[in-house]
Amino acid sequence: MQFSSALLETAVNEFAKLPGIGKKTALRMVLHLLKQEASDVQHFSDVVAKMRTEIRFCHRCHNVADADICSICANSMRKQEIICVVENIRDVIALESTQQYSGTYHVLGGVISPLDGIGPSQLNIDTLIHRTQKEETCEVIFALSPTIQGDTTIYYIQKKLPANIKVTTIARGIAFGGELEYADEMTLARSLQNRLPVDSYVSSK
Amino acid sequence: MQFSSALLETAVNEFAKLPGIGKKTALRMVLHLLKQEASDVQHFSDVVAKMRTEIRFCHRCHNVADADICSICANSMRKQEIICVVENIRDVIALESTQQYSGTYHVLGGVISPLDGIGPSQLNIDTLIHRTQKEETCEVIFALSPTIQGDTTIYYIQKKLPANIKVTTIARGIAFGGELEYADEMTLARSLQNRLPVDSYVSSK
Repeated sequence: MQFSSALLETAVNEFAKLPGIGKKTALRMVLHLLKQEASDVQHFSDVVAKMRTEIRFCHRCHNVADADICSICANSMRKQEIICVVENIRDVIALESTQQYSGTYHVLGGVISPLDGIGPSQLNIDTLIHRTQKEETCEVIFALSPTIQGDTTIYYIQKKLPANIKVTTIARGIAFGGELEYADEMTLARSLQNRLPVDSYVSSK
Repeated sequence: MQFSSALLETAVNEFAKLPGIGKKTALRMVLHLLKQEASDVQHFSDVVAKMRTEIRFCHRCHNVADADICSICANSMRKQEIICVVENIRDVIALESTQQYSGTYHVLGGVISPLDGIGPSQLNIDTLIHRTQKEETCEVIFALSPTIQGDTTIYYIQKKLPANIKVTTIARGIAFGGELEYADEMTLARSLQNRLPVDSYVSSK
């Protein structure tokens, strides 16, 4: 692409660094911003800079926070003795959006994946173990992706947790709206193995 | 979406205002920036603010510029007596990327479209007429989209241009790689009507 303005080119290149954004989409964004009020664009710019410098990560659960402790950990209405272990912040947002969970979280920052060079020491596993030992945790729920890496991570952490803690994982099965014939064998086999009494299925609906 | 950080939520909302960006993509961008070095994010923020305040529009052709006159108008190597009339800045970038055009441009800022409430007075038509009268323009090339609005705009402007100026439009026809059977009737009829001698076709390849 040939730009007749160096300022425009620099801005397009910066936007093109964002994930999933090519040069053409970046140009569209920049030209959109160029049409907005100067004060709105200044606000956009300020919000981005402020977000990076001021967002912190919760000392307890590693979720994003505006203070030392995130709003979920600081909320006394939530069941602090239940910990849901997730891979990243996006998973916290997804689970929070269900409005069905009232415990706390622990963000691992990834899953154990030797092929990608990610071992247990690079993840927030030690702080999770420490937390379950220090606090009066009664349940740890694993909400990791159903992959080999996810299962390995569950297996590794489970062995290190205090023996008196209940350890569960979110159910694997056929998703709502999913068609049986297109489900993979592993999912189908597991959903058969972990079949539910119809009573509990109907009442949970 | 439920965010546990107000800073994160504000940043996601700002990104979601960009064209074609939904909340999920915005979140992905914000989390990407959160992982970058603070200095890189500060640079991104600065570039956006600077772009909006410092980019100007060329007094002569209304293209984006870093000064009063854009780099194309200021370039004495380009044929200043040829003007290519385009709808917007994106079209200038597209034409410049072909590296086949050595004249100047005139950005209209849209096309005449009564249904959308866009009349000639809202477009940079007066400055074009004025330019052709004042400068020694020898050719005006219309490079507008082949729509009713585009054709109306060409017709309107053409009547106002000084009579001694050559007025042309970019060729309409079957695009390279396009299949004849899928071309619409209008395009096919026009490409037949404006057929080229094989000599000129082969030599222009």
